[in-house]
Amino acid sequence: MQKQHTFKLKNKPKIVGSYTIVGPKEGRGNFGEYFDYVMKNDCFGEDTFEKAERKMMETAVTGVIQKAKLQPKNIDIMIAGDLLNQIVSSSYAARAFQFSFLGVYGACSTMAESLAVGSVLVDSKYCKNVVCCTGSHFSTAERQFRFPLELGNQRPPTSQWTVTGAGACVLSLEGVGPRISMVTFGRVVDWGVKDVNNMGGAMAPAVRETLLSHFQNTKTTPEDYDLILTGDLGKLGSEILIDLMDDEGVTLGVNYGDCGQMYFKREQKTLCGASGAGCCATVFNSYIIRKMLEGQYKKVLFLPTGALLSSTSTQQGDSIPCVCHAIVIEMD
Amino acid sequence: MQKQHTFKLKNKPKIVGSYTIVGPKEGRGNFGEYFDYVMKNDCFGEDTFEKAERKMMETAVTGVIQKAKLQPKNIDIMIAGDLLNQIVSSSYAARAFQFSFLGVYGACSTMAESLAVGSVLVDSKYCKNVVCCTGSHFSTAERQFRFPLELGNQRPPTSQWTVTGAGACVLSLEGVGPRISMVTFGRVVDWGVKDVNNMGGAMAPAVRETLLSHFQNTKTTPEDYDLILTGDLGKLGSEILIDLMDDEGVTLGVNYGDCGQMYFKREQKTLCGASGAGCCATVFNSYIIRKMLEGQYKKVLFLPTGALLSSTSTQQGDSIPCVCHAIVIEMD
Repeated sequence: MQKQHTFKLKNKPKIVGSYTIVGPKEGRGNFGEYFDYVMKNDCFGEDTFEKAERKMMETAVTGVIQKAKLQPKNIDIMIAGDLLNQIVSSSYAARAFQFSFLGVYGACSTMAESLAVGSVLVDSKYCKNVVCCTGSHFSTAERQFRFPLELGNQRPPTSQWTVTGAGACVLSLEGVGPRISMVTFGRVVDWGVKDVNNMGGAMAPAVRETLLSHFQNTKTTPEDYDLILTGDLGKLGSEILIDLMDDEGVTLGVNYGDCGQMYFKREQKTLCGASGAGCCATVFNSYIIRKMLEGQYKKVLFLPTGALLSSTSTQQGDSIPCVCHAIVIEMD
Repeated sequence: MQKQHTFKLKNKPKIVGSYTIVGPKEGRGNFGEYFDYVMKNDCFGEDTFEKAERKMMETAVTGVIQKAKLQPKNIDIMIAGDLLNQIVSSSYAARAFQFSFLGVYGACSTMAESLAVGSVLVDSKYCKNVVCCTGSHFSTAERQFRFPLELGNQRPPTSQWTVTGAGACVLSLEGVGPRISMVTFGRVVDWGVKDVNNMGGAMAPAVRETLLSHFQNTKTTPEDYDLILTGDLGKLGSEILIDLMDDEGVTLGVNYGDCGQMYFKREQKTLCGASGAGCCATVFNSYIIRKMLEGQYKKVLFLPTGALLSSTSTQQGDSIPCVCHAIVIEMD
């Protein structure tokens, strides 16, 4: 295995504002009290779910600029992505603003991409204030990747529930907030899982590679972090990851958690938990940032994960390539 | 109009190698002699067009690493994107390599995104060698965005022909090659065009905004560049751009060209010309780099353009949001 590449950011850009918006089911979940805005229903006043998803992202970007006490004219660029074909939610959301737009795609790992690229642009001082945003919508993802909602298909036990929600943050060198100190870009890993209803199982090996490289490159161990948080492996995927890391002699202990597993309450019947680009984006930009600002977490290793398949690749019999990027966030 | 953001790269990363692979029709076009590899047919030995597209991108990445006289282990990251849903061609191509992967999406402007993000990573010295790659395939794009190929639909006069081809380059601070000196990230512009067979018309206003900002920010005029090259506006779109710029008092003269317009010969019957993420990627990484190395062009303003729609957004009655990023490449 070739080691993946880690770099330390010289100026450690700060997250000077964050904002989250979610659907009603998400609002009743474990992080409900931390979200900025809970929609009354999944349509958000629009006539299609796709337009609702777009409006959620627009709302998140508008909201985060206000929370960071900035004006839209202070923003140099918005870096965003989502799960829809041609990342239309991000592109159409960006249309509402006057600042530049850079589209990224890493499936449910997209928040890591936008944070990584954004922090390098800010760190190098080529951009002053950067908005990072990702989101997803249960109803758009379900009908694009799986089946028409009207079919009411039964969900297998390994399946996860796509989060309806969007999260955004502003990166800057000026202001107050947790700092992004390190990035490890992950590589595409595919151990041959073909079951599109077992994303956690497919993604766990990608996290393993990124984690192993990150610990080696930075000479750190799990104990060096107050929290190690994977994107959306869900219940099964995070158990697989713990086993895989155990095999490598690395113990993920009580400081390890997975956004997908923690998102919903047991009685919400989401089987293996939450998923979607909005999953880790809304946990990170609400609960994690809040707890870092309050001093509960000083050093967090954030590992959003993505399954890089499409319905065409699945129909053509391909297995699921996955990726995981690691971001270290520190509070002074 | 808020001015878009331009920055000058301190270390001006060099393009130390480039590689292009195209289909047979593209090989018979105006740039035929400059491509590294012309496929005998569009299937490239694979059983689906999607797998052929993926293999093209793999071939481009392998080829460019060799041409840059590097080993895969010298590459820190590959930044790539394509037109297929969930950019599967890039992700699956990346699976063949051990280095990290970052997915970007800007439709036919994707080459600009990968060059911009790659050059910042190299300029900041966070990455040493970065591979940038984009591609497209006529037969996969046609059936994903328009109609089944078997229908043999008639093409309207404003339509363009998606290029079957992939282009890649390696960015580094060490080695010989043209330098990336400036970047202007564009914003999403939508003047209400809804005709999916008139991409050039939809995209021209986005180029206008990026060009105006770029000229203002850098205090340059069209005469300061040996070549101003837009992505794939095609015949109609580039004429619209010339008019739009004329209205602003900026004359695009003989040093202006469009990859889409120049790509095919008249007798190849592509109506308004070429398009696709592979269009400007294969022109840039073959002809442009060659002519810069030979000294014919000293300073090129490269403006890949992208139409950020999806078939779902079209079906829901949306107009076409577009983007254009500007990259300045200079030869010492």
